[in-house]
Amino acid sequence: MDHQTAKLEHWVLKLARRYLDDRGFYEMLPPRVVRASGACENIDTLFEVSAGGDRKWFRPEGKTGNVYLAQTGQLYLEAYVPKLRKVYCVGSSFRAEPRVDKRHLTEFTLIEIEFAGDFDELLRYIEDFINAIVRGLLSLPTSEIEALGLKSRVLDLADCPVTFPKLTYDQAIARLQEMGEDISWGDDISSQREKKLIESVSGQPLFLVRFPDPMWDWDKEVEVEKFFNMIPDQQSPGRVLSADLILPHGGEAVGAAARVHDPDELVYRLEGSKMMARLKRKGGSIDDFSWYIKHTRRQGSVPHAGCGFGLARIMQWLQGKESIADAVTFPSNRERVI
Amino acid sequence: MDHQTAKLEHWVLKLARRYLDDRGFYEMLPPRVVRASGACENIDTLFEVSAGGDRKWFRPEGKTGNVYLAQTGQLYLEAYVPKLRKVYCVGSSFRAEPRVDKRHLTEFTLIEIEFAGDFDELLRYIEDFINAIVRGLLSLPTSEIEALGLKSRVLDLADCPVTFPKLTYDQAIARLQEMGEDISWGDDISSQREKKLIESVSGQPLFLVRFPDPMWDWDKEVEVEKFFNMIPDQQSPGRVLSADLILPHGGEAVGAAARVHDPDELVYRLEGSKMMARLKRKGGSIDDFSWYIKHTRRQGSVPHAGCGFGLARIMQWLQGKESIADAVTFPSNRERVI
Repeated sequence: MDHQTAKLEHWVLKLARRYLDDRGFYEMLPPRVVRASGACENIDTLFEVSAGGDRKWFRPEGKTGNVYLAQTGQLYLEAYVPKLRKVYCVGSSFRAEPRVDKRHLTEFTLIEIEFAGDFDELLRYIEDFINAIVRGLLSLPTSEIEALGLKSRVLDLADCPVTFPKLTYDQAIARLQEMGEDISWGDDISSQREKKLIESVSGQPLFLVRFPDPMWDWDKEVEVEKFFNMIPDQQSPGRVLSADLILPHGGEAVGAAARVHDPDELVYRLEGSKMMARLKRKGGSIDDFSWYIKHTRRQGSVPHAGCGFGLARIMQWLQGKESIADAVTFPSNRERVI
Repeated sequence: MDHQTAKLEHWVLKLARRYLDDRGFYEMLPPRVVRASGACENIDTLFEVSAGGDRKWFRPEGKTGNVYLAQTGQLYLEAYVPKLRKVYCVGSSFRAEPRVDKRHLTEFTLIEIEFAGDFDELLRYIEDFINAIVRGLLSLPTSEIEALGLKSRVLDLADCPVTFPKLTYDQAIARLQEMGEDISWGDDISSQREKKLIESVSGQPLFLVRFPDPMWDWDKEVEVEKFFNMIPDQQSPGRVLSADLILPHGGEAVGAAARVHDPDELVYRLEGSKMMARLKRKGGSIDDFSWYIKHTRRQGSVPHAGCGFGLARIMQWLQGKESIADAVTFPSNRERVI
């Protein structure tokens, strides 16, 4: 029950919304009780929803079907990009994360944006959004900065650059190998290693970009996994136009990508994804995504991109907290629910 | 996929937040996966949350316990009133509402406020909040009002008064009886009858206030049911300081009350509530509320009040829609989930 953290959350939300409002983004209210179209790639951490003990209480389109807690509002936002051009939402992302550790929560606030535009614009939006929050906080009166508990963080935050260094996934793997890490191309980059990369670059926010395309015909199993609708990078075969923003303290705080907008390509990538294979094992099917595919076929789509800002990890960085549970007002994990 | 409705939601949220921001309310992020302390009085409509099919996946405080989807963030906000004075949140309220009709959704956005203050201030906040939205919309350029689909609603909305007529529950029952309705004191007032009351008064927003106190020793069963921590009305024995705002088209759109802040009184009313009896039948206990009671004992509380604005019903009124599912961007009910 820490009111200092609550005040800081209020300020971060206010500055974030002001930034998006000033740029003409529409705030939307995507659902949080959803079919699998509200899942991210991490489908094994979906929470199920039941009523009166009945897991088949909902009858979407007259059929019985599992219903889950949303991990992302991405597709719901994407459906509105052709008409509204720039949209965003603020809401809970739910993950049945079994680990009780310093990095994970079962519920956290995600600020998600989608807009008609390309990958370069996306990276600039992320840089500007983060800077709008940091500059906004640092421009508060000194007494308010103290009241928010940020006094000891001012010098470090003031060093946050306007643009962030970018390492491609390939460069990041090579750099880690140079540093003596036992890592191979195709491996996932752990949070420990993300921390080493940040320290080796500038000790400030760092982009990892252009991850391996999960649909590319690699000779080997590629461990690193990305959402099905990330668009292939035309300049770099076998890579997608995706980006993770890594923050000191918080680690991966933003996941971002340019999205596939061609409906046939969407279906091809969805059908071939590991996510869909897992969903089928859970008793789900591509039916859960049919509303989005039909919608995209009917009204067409436009080149677009988007990302999700994990508020708790941004809060961790702003406050320099080692544990995510100390960084937010209502932390929840498997052992902590109120 | 109606982008006109999406635009209107955006404007309503923006005007609502501007109103609260200007009055110094802090935005908070209460949890949506909760123990029973996130339930409203309507506890039979709680959704349960499971992971991997396990309803006891969460182990709050080391014990196994049911975990639900929040119906309200009220108590989480109330916990912060002593320190922050004025707080609010915007998020989904989840109800396992079996009826698929024109009035109910399984998920809707609730804007909730809690503040240090009394019942009269609460009613003024509600009147001002609703007026801020209506006046804000009507002051948009004519082209924007048309783009939002509100052109045919302008005259009616412009008639919305600055203060709303108020009927006590007792007066409402008497008036319905005068109108020939077969209703007795103690009965719940149905949405059909709320509509008749509105028409008999002004055809504009109407407050029903000072409902029967569920803890009063009535000789009969009182059907109308209110949340456990509504404070007794000192001027009118056997009544609580509660208010429902009834809107044309939308019906009951705001539930409001001054809250009990004495921890012993809280425990007494919680233990005696129908809600707690139902929760016990579901396998729950007062343990789910112990964090709030302990918190209130430890830090003390202050006289305070609050309410929840049901966005979908406000949207229904603004647009003059007969069905709630036509009034919001992503309507969901038992047969409709995407």
